[in-house]
Amino acid sequence: MEFPFSKIKGGVGAPLGFVTSAISCGIKNPDATRLDLALIHSEVSCSSAGTFTTNRVKAAPVKLSQAHLRKGDLRCIIANSGNANACTGVAGIRDAKVMCAEVAKLLKLKTSEVGVCSTGVIGLPMPMSRIEPRIAELIEKLSPKNGSEVAAAIITSDTRAKEIAISVDIDGHRVRIGGCVKGAGMISPSMATMLCFITTDANLSSACLRKCTLECVEESFNRITIDGDMSTNDTVLVLANGKSGMPTIRRNSNACRIFRSALQYVMIELAKAVVRDGERVTKFVTVEVKGARTYLDAKKVAEAVSKSALVKASWNGGDPNWGRIIHAVGYSSARIREELVDIFINEKPSCLGGLQAPTPMDELRTIVAKPEFTVKIHLNQGEARYTMYTSDLSPEYIDFNRSEYAYWKQARKDGLV
Amino acid sequence: MEFPFSKIKGGVGAPLGFVTSAISCGIKNPDATRLDLALIHSEVSCSSAGTFTTNRVKAAPVKLSQAHLRKGDLRCIIANSGNANACTGVAGIRDAKVMCAEVAKLLKLKTSEVGVCSTGVIGLPMPMSRIEPRIAELIEKLSPKNGSEVAAAIITSDTRAKEIAISVDIDGHRVRIGGCVKGAGMISPSMATMLCFITTDANLSSACLRKCTLECVEESFNRITIDGDMSTNDTVLVLANGKSGMPTIRRNSNACRIFRSALQYVMIELAKAVVRDGERVTKFVTVEVKGARTYLDAKKVAEAVSKSALVKASWNGGDPNWGRIIHAVGYSSARIREELVDIFINEKPSCLGGLQAPTPMDELRTIVAKPEFTVKIHLNQGEARYTMYTSDLSPEYIDFNRSEYAYWKQARKDGLV
Repeated sequence: MEFPFSKIKGGVGAPLGFVTSAISCGIKNPDATRLDLALIHSEVSCSSAGTFTTNRVKAAPVKLSQAHLRKGDLRCIIANSGNANACTGVAGIRDAKVMCAEVAKLLKLKTSEVGVCSTGVIGLPMPMSRIEPRIAELIEKLSPKNGSEVAAAIITSDTRAKEIAISVDIDGHRVRIGGCVKGAGMISPSMATMLCFITTDANLSSACLRKCTLECVEESFNRITIDGDMSTNDTVLVLANGKSGMPTIRRNSNACRIFRSALQYVMIELAKAVVRDGERVTKFVTVEVKGARTYLDAKKVAEAVSKSALVKASWNGGDPNWGRIIHAVGYSSARIREELVDIFINEKPSCLGGLQAPTPMDELRTIVAKPEFTVKIHLNQGEARYTMYTSDLSPEYIDFNRSEYAYWKQARKDGLV
Repeated sequence: MEFPFSKIKGGVGAPLGFVTSAISCGIKNPDATRLDLALIHSEVSCSSAGTFTTNRVKAAPVKLSQAHLRKGDLRCIIANSGNANACTGVAGIRDAKVMCAEVAKLLKLKTSEVGVCSTGVIGLPMPMSRIEPRIAELIEKLSPKNGSEVAAAIITSDTRAKEIAISVDIDGHRVRIGGCVKGAGMISPSMATMLCFITTDANLSSACLRKCTLECVEESFNRITIDGDMSTNDTVLVLANGKSGMPTIRRNSNACRIFRSALQYVMIELAKAVVRDGERVTKFVTVEVKGARTYLDAKKVAEAVSKSALVKASWNGGDPNWGRIIHAVGYSSARIREELVDIFINEKPSCLGGLQAPTPMDELRTIVAKPEFTVKIHLNQGEARYTMYTSDLSPEYIDFNRSEYAYWKQARKDGLV
């Protein structure tokens, strides 16, 4: 690692001046006891930045958080799992507003200082009768110690909570960055939206934070895929409260470069954690494309290979099938020349100049049998490169996603549909 | 049906003046006895037309058939299953040329009058020692009676041969069109390329045939998807020999409209047959999009829904999950407005104005439990429409495509790799 990071404990609660809490409301199922409502709060005002799904069907909390960010900076995030509050119309917007307004009232903030995120099933009304009365309790429990509970409260089909915290020295000042993420498909729309919350006690303007956030999301969450589906709820929110006591980081300064690099590290680690915990995933595969004519060509090739159902099925089977990889390179719409394409599995060539390489098949099979490997694709046409993080596609993924009928039955029981 | 078609027997052998044959060469496996090499031959010269994969990685036979079509009209097609002759470099081109040249020599044609198609595994050399010596036998067996054997010889992972033949009256003349197709994924690159051969005794110029072919392919084979992968070998070839004795069909004439409509019927039936026989498919789903602002928007929506792994998984589970459908509508990049979107399963509304429709869940589940149904998506923004034919995605599909190691082992045994 180029910069002086060290990992610390505490997740989103690690940076100074942040308090968090999580409780169990039974949002998906009134009998369940798992954490499903979480709050992140900065004791002082923050700079803030966010990126959101580009899906034209946006969940109510996405629309509301976007509107709040346009008005000014956030200082609080309330998030729930168990219901995405997506495709819920005017009622959904009202419910998301109630969540923000209740938090704002009790913490004496403006409603627009509260961001809201939801994840879970699409198209079912929020069970507000189980959420609204519990917000006071959520606020009572706020403490610097609960960062990991936030990570636990936002997961859905994830098999584990995913969080990270690091400290980094910037111009002699110790700064902390904490983050948590949920998501088990790039999207699994009705089950596994990607949400990511990052807190830091670094001191920087909203403009500078926004720029760093956009750049780091581009290099992390925009480069992962599990099933190729894009959610209605994907959200990344970053809050920076300056409590480390450092002077303001100026744009394009050395301090800014160090902060950006630390933020990028946090986001890439969280993005990789999402792929590793993908629904019924057995392989973590890095797809590195280089030698493309343009950045866009490199990206097209990486995305086509990373999303191909047939390539992913072959990885699931431990089959180093370069034929399927080059066929996806070919249909990517990038300007490639078949006879120039080299494909390596880790360091071993499997295809050279568009033809079978001499590496013994069993050597390649040994690599692809492992849970992690890298596919390197050299187009030999230019200097542009692009990297993506992806997974295999398993029969169990399809099986897992065959039906959400159980959710509808619960909503019917709740009198919501 | 608007035009006077009637179904007849004989597949690609049904039109007058075409003779066909198929033999077993053991291309994939020398011990196997299944048909794997086929020939279609017109006793007189033909007009011809073809469409090919847009994958930038093109199999040798695709490149050669394209070159032959540029030189003039085809009169013969030689096709094999068991090996795609793709990613085989200069040797692959040489092997494809040998196949055409051998046929041409024995039938006293120009090499460029012979089209060649291959389907099977990618990246392995053609076992020419098992093919070349058998071409004389292939030609000896030519007969008007063997149409169905051609359909049988070209299949790979297909569970059944797929063919059709119709007769149609055009301006008082009886004309026949026969066709066969193979393919069990829109592409399953190394296994199931789509090949389609059409013969007809209609009399029309190459220019007119080309125009009809392009238009009909756009409305049939370009509208199906199983796994979203595009092959290196996809080919549609059409031969018209005029043996029905009718006068030449002129462009934009009524006769041309009738012929085009008959050709379109044949191609749509064959395209649907490919989806119905898709790898481990259990549902045939028609996705009809209407009310789009533009044709391109309608197409984007139809493609996104038809290709979504999560939508297809829900169909496999018999789950009428409109949340997943609208999320795919949203990420299609078409200009849609969530609050205007209606979704129907057959005639029953499942989503109206972006919200849950009142149709009881069990009624929708009953429809999606059936092997065939239609998803109608009304965007309510314009007049443009687009229809696609797709399938579910099953755990068994992934399982089926996990490994092709057996092919490599055979090639190793053959001394080819």
